[in-house]
Order: sequence, then structure tokens, then C-alpha cells
Amino acid sequence: MAAAVAPTDQGPLAGLRIVESTAFIAAPLATMSLAALGAEVIRLDPSEGGLDHQRWPLSQEGASLYWTMLNRGKKSVTLDLRTEEGREAAARLVCEGDGIFVTNLPARGALAPEALLDRRQDVIVVTLDGSPDGATAIDYTVHAACGAAQMAGPAGLDSPVNNAVPFWDVIAGRTLAMGLLAAELERRRTGRGQHVALSLSDIAMETMANVGILPEAELSGEARPRQENWVYGSFGRDFETRCGRRFMLATVTGKQWRALLSATGLGTAMDRIGEAFGAPLDDDAERFRARHAIAALVQDWAGARDLTQIADAFAGTSVCWSPYRDAAQLLAEDARASPRNPMFARQAHPGVPPVLTPRTPLRLSAHPRLAAARAPDLGADTASVLGPLDTAGKEADP
Amino acid sequence: MAAAVAPTDQGPLAGLRIVESTAFIAAPLATMSLAALGAEVIRLDPSEGGLDHQRWPLSQEGASLYWTMLNRGKKSVTLDLRTEEGREAAARLVCEGDGIFVTNLPARGALAPEALLDRRQDVIVVTLDGSPDGATAIDYTVHAACGAAQMAGPAGLDSPVNNAVPFWDVIAGRTLAMGLLAAELERRRTGRGQHVALSLSDIAMETMANVGILPEAELSGEARPRQENWVYGSFGRDFETRCGRRFMLATVTGKQWRALLSATGLGTAMDRIGEAFGAPLDDDAERFRARHAIAALVQDWAGARDLTQIADAFAGTSVCWSPYRDAAQLLAEDARASPRNPMFARQAHPGVPPVLTPRTPLRLSAHPRLAAARAPDLGADTASVLGPLDTAGKEADP
Repeated sequence: MAAAVAPTDQGPLAGLRIVESTAFIAAPLATMSLAALGAEVIRLDPSEGGLDHQRWPLSQEGASLYWTMLNRGKKSVTLDLRTEEGREAAARLVCEGDGIFVTNLPARGALAPEALLDRRQDVIVVTLDGSPDGATAIDYTVHAACGAAQMAGPAGLDSPVNNAVPFWDVIAGRTLAMGLLAAELERRRTGRGQHVALSLSDIAMETMANVGILPEAELSGEARPRQENWVYGSFGRDFETRCGRRFMLATVTGKQWRALLSATGLGTAMDRIGEAFGAPLDDDAERFRARHAIAALVQDWAGARDLTQIADAFAGTSVCWSPYRDAAQLLAEDARASPRNPMFARQAHPGVPPVLTPRTPLRLSAHPRLAAARAPDLGADTASVLGPLDTAGKEADP
Repeated sequence: MAAAVAPTDQGPLAGLRIVESTAFIAAPLATMSLAALGAEVIRLDPSEGGLDHQRWPLSQEGASLYWTMLNRGKKSVTLDLRTEEGREAAARLVCEGDGIFVTNLPARGALAPEALLDRRQDVIVVTLDGSPDGATAIDYTVHAACGAAQMAGPAGLDSPVNNAVPFWDVIAGRTLAMGLLAAELERRRTGRGQHVALSLSDIAMETMANVGILPEAELSGEARPRQENWVYGSFGRDFETRCGRRFMLATVTGKQWRALLSATGLGTAMDRIGEAFGAPLDDDAERFRARHAIAALVQDWAGARDLTQIADAFAGTSVCWSPYRDAAQLLAEDARASPRNPMFARQAHPGVPPVLTPRTPLRLSAHPRLAAARAPDLGADTASVLGPLDTAGKEADP
């Protein structure tokens, strides 16, 4: 039982040491996620910063909020991997450490996966590329390719809808972290290292299959049309309140449906809808078929009430709903995006005043959550990390 | 080096045994992802199937493509967890096995995390709920809450845009898998188990912070306005071809920008744009500021060509682009969504004729990819999994 387990403040991955040469989102996110669980992560960058070091959004002081948030809790070493000497120093750092290297950049020479595995058999090299056919691909282009951009947005829209959040990158990042830990488990059992490779486009293709969209298109011969804001296959949609706010409401279980009828008093009216459609609305498929009629009644109910009245009516019930908020409203209205949520703390970073900074989203009973971590100053750890290594290297050289 | 490593066809997680009681997407996806790496996963369901067993889309035979794809490679045991007897049998199955239990359903009695940890100190219990405040939440409602729905879609749209793909669930699923493996690494090192908990809403809040959107809103006091299909902070957008197709084009590095100029012959024209804006378009920020002018030139170029001509012009270059496709076009046009991609194989499932079925997206040098796995028939493994347990249980009972 948990009480018998001595908590430690090192996190479950304490002792794991990862070296990375990464840019953009997926790969830095993978290692940041592991750092938040206690891994030591050392990132290598050119002295002027990597490709994404100035990427928008920026703080008033000109620091990239994007780079900052994706590199929290890491050490920063500047090293020029465009030279053979730099790559050799990096390879030594990997192989004299815990033997784990993560990259989404071209890894040549001493940093090529095969070269690292030649140097040390139990190295784990984790690489991310765009497409398994070698073509360039990023979040935006795999989104265009995979079918998802044609499925979102209002009916009748003649153009695709891009994501405003780089979801494919985020999924890829967590998948890389999963793959790294799977390889580490195997290494501890067998002593073997390996190269773990992932292509971003495979994440998109895999996901479209996993959620049933790809097999649906394969079996029907047709892509699912845009669903606007409807929940596909059950009842749910966005609604507008009297005060001009909008909220999302979904019923994906019988319990949620019954809670909605009870909270709105619409049970009898829905019985009539069921009779009109010849189906008693008692499963998801029936509710999906009658969704326009159901929604008209719910909209009448919502449109006669302010958001606060609706919140009161739904409070403490199993109704599954949320107001829509933009990011500023989120910060103003939702305690889950505030320091009252133990996941968050206000933390300053180089060039960035204190901002809400996440800890790991995982709550572990054997550990307190590690403190919200600061992003490094570029190159801050170069001397402490490479100094001993350089000396050792020089001494060992013939 | 890889040649010295004997491949096995068991996968890196061979020997890991997970019991689950899950529904919908995130939790089943977490364990399916681990099954694809060799873990043995046993899912427990009521004999009529769980909440999501009939969820759309359906095959012609009435099988849920959604449930099928998310439960590939698992064993299926029917057991009624609404009874204390059923929960006790499940707790024995967990504790007499490898001691790993994953659930996103209410886990009461013998299946409560504390009860399992009382029974066996080194159990790992992984739970997912909607919101850390105990409120009901699903992918749709955390999307509404977190700010993302206000950021996507065409300018001037007065309503939010829901995701057509349950991205938050997919991220949560891979995060749960990462957390499970982190706890397993710690258990192998220390012998300690623990409860690993996650809330779906924390995944959304964390991600909005990780990609810089939340700190941007906090520091500016304003939410980023809709970007339509523009890439934020560099140059990129969707374009229409002469033949009426659309493609996404992004330049997030100098190399990609130069490749675009070279492939389109627009270098001189872009020099003039740079002069007009008083900035030479040689970094992302300058290109973002001049994006409307740049895009007008690129649209003129694209609109004078068919998609095949554009594909020819970009082939073999570093231009980062993709045609938009719906899911049917994806299957018809893109070899990455076909058995020519080693990630995929055509595989039949119960009630589902052969469809493209993914293996793990991870390519591991120490293992061949495990075969694409079949979804189980509901209850197919009840006797083989519970039979020995029941017997053992009866013998051991006083």
C-alpha cells in the first residue's frame, strides 16, 4: 500500500540520462516529458541557437515562448554538430553517459545511429523523420495528407481546415517517449540497445486507422463528410446561450443522456421526438439519427438562459459539457488553468517573466510531482557537462 | 552494432502482462500501443460488451470499426465488474499476473487503486479520468475549454471549430503508455508499485502551455486570433491548383524557403517583395509579416499549374508540401496508406473484412515489426484466462 512506499523527490526516471539534438516540437517534447518524470536531459545546440530558438510566439524580451516551454528542465550545451569534431564530442557524451540519444535532425558521422551502436552496443538511439519515404514532412503537411483537414469545420466550406495546435507533433512526441522507455526496459533486461525510429506521417496514418476513419473509408469507398461540430455517432453539438456564449454538450453514454434530460426538464419532449422518429432515443445511434430535432430543443432551452444559469443547472450532474473559451478566457475563468491546479506553477524562464508552467500531467502515488522546471539559458551547462569529458578525452587520446 | 543483436519476434515488451477495464479511446489506445510492442493485454468487458462496443463507425456486419481498431492484439475476457464477485476475480487476475491494471472506468471495491496496492505492494494501477476536479469531461469538452476551438477555422467564423479527430484522447493514450512504462522501469529497479493517474483535461491544458499558446495569452492578456490556414510565425498556407485541388505549403527553415524559390523560380520576385517591405525575407518573422504578398505570388504560380505539374516541380527538392486529401483520396493516392508502407497490413477482424491495419509506428532495429494484430471476439479468452484462476482461487479458498 502507498503508505509503505517511501516517496522520493527524484521522480520515477531518476538516473536516466538522455542527450538530444532536436528542434521544433515532437522530439523536444518527448524528452521534456521524460525530464518532467526525473530524467536528466542534455540538449545540444549551435552557439547561436538551433532552427527553432527564435520561433514565435516571443516574450516582450524576445525569448521564444515555444522553445522555452518545450525545453524546460533540460541542460543546455552548445556544440557545433556541423563539424566532425563536434559530432565526435557529442558521440562521446552519449556513450560515456547513459547511452541514450534523441534526434530529429540529420545525424551524420559519429552521431549516425549505426555509428553509435558500433561504438557501444547498448546505446538507444531515437530518431524522428517526416516520412518513411524520405520526403520532407511536418505537422501541417501530414495533416493535409491524412484526410483530417477535410473533416473539420462548417458544412459547405470549400477549403480544408488546418489545426491551430500541432496535434500530430504532440502525439509523435509522446509516442517517441513511449518507444524510448520500451527500449530502456528491454535494455535493462537484456543489455541490448537499439535504434528506435519514427516517421511523423506514420503517426497521422496510424491514428486515422486507430479511430476507425481509415477503415470506414476503405470499406465504404467514401470519406466521411464534414460533421461540423456534431459528435459523430451519438448526440452532441455546440449551443449558444442567451448571453452570447457557446458551450459544447455531448452525451456518449446513457447516463450522460439521462442527466441531460433531468437537468433540462426535456424528458417528455424527447419522448415525443422519439415517437416522431419511431425510435425511443435510448441508444447513441438513435440519438444521432434524430440529432437535428434533439438539438433544436436543447438550443431553445440554452438560448433562454445565461451561461451562469446553465452552469448552475448542470453543476453536480453527469451532464458532459463545457463552455468554449479562448486562451485568455481560459486563464480568467478556469481554475484548471491556474496554480490552483497542482499541475501548474508560475515559473520564470530566461527572458520570460513568471508564467503558468506545467509539471508532468501524470500523478504518481510514489512521488510528489517534481517542481515546475525552468528552461535553460543557451549554453549554460556547456562547461560543466563537456569540461570533464574534454579533459578525459584529451587524456585518453594517443 | 545491430548485427550482433539477435532479433526476436516477441517485441521489446514481451513478458509484460496488462489487465484493463476501459472504454472509448485514450485508455484502450494506451494498452493497444503497448500490445503492438509485445505486451500481453487482457481486456475485461461485460458479456454484452462495454459502453463503446457498438460505437460508430460500423462495418456492414455491424461491428464497431472504432472498437475493433482500438482493441487489436488484446485478449477478451467477459466478467461483470458491477458485482463484488466480478471485481474480486479481476483483482485476483491482476495480482496473480504481472500486477498491472489500466482503467478509465470507476474502479470500486477490490479494483480501487488503494485496494490493489493493499493486496500487492508492487501493483501498477493506471487510471484516467476527465478532470482533476472530478467533473465529467471528454475529448469534445476539454477541446471547448482549452482555447483550441477558437483558434482553428476561417477568419470571421462566429462559432468554434471542433476537432474531427479526437486528438486529446490520442495524446492522453500515448501519455498513459509513457507513464505506465516509467512506473514499470521504477518497479524493476526498486520493487515498488504505484498508482499513475491522469486527467484528460490536464492533457489539454498542458499542451496549450507546451506549445506556447497559454503563456502568450498570459503575457499579452489576449488570445491569439484565428490564423485561418496560415502557419503562425513563418510562411505557409494552403493553395489552390489549376485543376481545383488544394495543397499545403510550409517553410519553417531557410532551406525549405530557398527550395521553394528555386522550384518555383520566384526568387527575383521575392527579392522585390522584400524590398517593398524593407526586409529581405531571410527569416521566419519577416516572411510571416510579408505573408500575404508572398502568398499572392505563390498562388499565381500554383493556379497556373495542375497538381501533377506542381508535384513534378517539387519532387526531389526540400520543399515541404502536401496535397490535401480526404480519407478516400488518401487510400487511392498515397502509398503511405497502403500495404507498401511496412506499418500497414490488410487484416480481417471479427465482423470486419480485411482492412488496412497498423502495426506499431515505431521501427525497432532489434525487432522485426510484430504482425498486424486482430481484434478479439468478445469473451473469446474468458475460459483460458479465468479458468485456471478460478480453479486456483477455489483451491486456495478456506
